[in-house]
Amino acid sequence: MKILLVFAHPEPKSLSASLRDVAVHELEAAGHEVRVSDLYAMNWKSQIDRADFPALASGERLLPVAASKNAFTTDTLTDDVKVEIDKLLWADTLILQFPLWWFTMPAILKGWVDRVFAYGFAYGVGEHSDKRWGDRYGEGTLAGKRAMLIVAAGGWQEHYGPRGVNGPIDDLLFPINHGILYYPGYNVLPPFVTYSTDRYNEERFEAAAQDLRERMRTLETTVSIPYRHQNGGDYHIPTMELREGLETPGVSGFALHLRRVAD
Amino acid sequence: MKILLVFAHPEPKSLSASLRDVAVHELEAAGHEVRVSDLYAMNWKSQIDRADFPALASGERLLPVAASKNAFTTDTLTDDVKVEIDKLLWADTLILQFPLWWFTMPAILKGWVDRVFAYGFAYGVGEHSDKRWGDRYGEGTLAGKRAMLIVAAGGWQEHYGPRGVNGPIDDLLFPINHGILYYPGYNVLPPFVTYSTDRYNEERFEAAAQDLRERMRTLETTVSIPYRHQNGGDYHIPTMELREGLETPGVSGFALHLRRVAD
Repeated sequence: MKILLVFAHPEPKSLSASLRDVAVHELEAAGHEVRVSDLYAMNWKSQIDRADFPALASGERLLPVAASKNAFTTDTLTDDVKVEIDKLLWADTLILQFPLWWFTMPAILKGWVDRVFAYGFAYGVGEHSDKRWGDRYGEGTLAGKRAMLIVAAGGWQEHYGPRGVNGPIDDLLFPINHGILYYPGYNVLPPFVTYSTDRYNEERFEAAAQDLRERMRTLETTVSIPYRHQNGGDYHIPTMELREGLETPGVSGFALHLRRVAD
Repeated sequence: MKILLVFAHPEPKSLSASLRDVAVHELEAAGHEVRVSDLYAMNWKSQIDRADFPALASGERLLPVAASKNAFTTDTLTDDVKVEIDKLLWADTLILQFPLWWFTMPAILKGWVDRVFAYGFAYGVGEHSDKRWGDRYGEGTLAGKRAMLIVAAGGWQEHYGPRGVNGPIDDLLFPINHGILYYPGYNVLPPFVTYSTDRYNEERFEAAAQDLRERMRTLETTVSIPYRHQNGGDYHIPTMELREGLETPGVSGFALHLRRVAD
C-alpha cells in the first residue's frame, strides 16, 4: 500500500508525534510505502486567501469557489497545494492525525483541507443538474481509496460516549468523516481515538500503541463506515433528502446516512 | 448593548461582507456599540505554535494546554490574543460570521478560537475534581453573555434539512454552538443561516437582509438554545453522562443535551 499521513501537532515530542511514529514504523515494517505531511514542520499556510490564486487579477473579486475552479482547471494552483494533491493521487490510503481541539481539527489542518480540496478535484466533480448532483458522497476523484482519522482527545472517553456531555465522538467526527473524507470518494474507516491524553503514562501509552499497531496491520481489511451512496437511489434528487422508510426505525440525525446493517 | 462581530471571509466585496454591513448598520442604528474583528483584514495568525508562548524556554516541549495555562496565568499571551480577550470581556454579545467551508468554519476562524480561547479563560475554569468538572457548559468566564452564528452555505437548504445528505444544520453547527460557545458560558441563540449562496440575486439578497435585520433587532430578546447546564444535576459526575430518563423519548445524539421543552 501507499499511505499518506497528514499530521497536525506543533510539538515533535508530543504524544501525537509518538503515536504517529508507532503507526509509520508498523506500516513500513509491513512493507508499505509511507509519506508524511507534517504540517507544522512544513510551515503550512493555514488560511485560504488571494495568494492562493496568483491568476486572479488585482482588483478582481475573490470568490473562493470560482477562483478554486479556475486555478484547478488552468493548473495555476500554488506549488504547495499541487504537491499535496499529487500525494493524494499517489496514496491509496489517507490518514489524518490530529489532537481534538475544540471538538474538531486544529486550524492548520482545516487550512490544509480548505486549500488542497480544490473545486474540480475534491468538489464540483461530475454532472450537476436536476438529475444528478455531482460525483460525491461515495463517488468522486478519490473513490476506491481508503481514509481514516487518528485522534487524541483530552477528555474522558465517557464524556464522548452516547450520553456524554460533549456529544458522541462519532457525531463530532461526522462532519470530517462524511463531509470531508467521504465527500470526495474515500471509503472511511472507523477512527482510532485515544482519550484522557493529559493522564497518559508508560502503561497507557503502550496499550494505545498496541491498539494502533493492530489498526495499521488491518488497514486493508477493516470494514469501512457504511455511509450511503448519494447517487445509489437512496436520496431524492435534487433535494438530496433521504427517501422515506429507508432508515432504521427511531434513527435520526447523522445516523440516517448510514445504511441499515441488514441492507 | 456592546457587540463584537468576528468576521472571516477574505473578500471585502463578498456576500458575507455585505450581510455583515447590514447587521452592523442595523445594530448601530439602534444605538448599540459594535466592534468588528475582521480576521483577514487584521492578517490574523491562524495556527497556534511556539510563537504564541514567548515565555516557553527554547527546547522546552510545547504542550498546548500547559503552555496556554501558563501564558494566561502569567499574562504572557501575545498582544494580538490579549486584544481579542479584552474585546470578548467588553462585549455582552458575540457574533461569529463565516461562510460554511467543508461543513464548518474557515481555518482562520478556527485559529482565532484555538488561540484566543485560552486555558483559564475559556476552558480550565473552576474546580476540577470528582465532584465538579469545571465551570463550563452554561457556566464560566463568559456566562451571562449571548452569542450567535451568521453562516452562509453554498448548498441548498434541503441538503441541510432533517433528512438532507449533508446532515442537519443544527447538528453540523453543534460542535461550534455547544462545544465552542456554550462551553465557556455563552447563552447561544439559534443561528442565522442563508443557503444557496451561489444562486443569489438582488431579490434574494434583500430578503436575507430583511431577515437578518430582524434578528439583529431581537438580539436581546431571542430565546437561546436550551442546552442543559453541566452542573445543574442532569449529568453524572465525573463521567458527565446524562442521567437516565431525562431525555425526550426517542431522542439520541446531540439532541440529548437540549432540555425537554416542558422542563
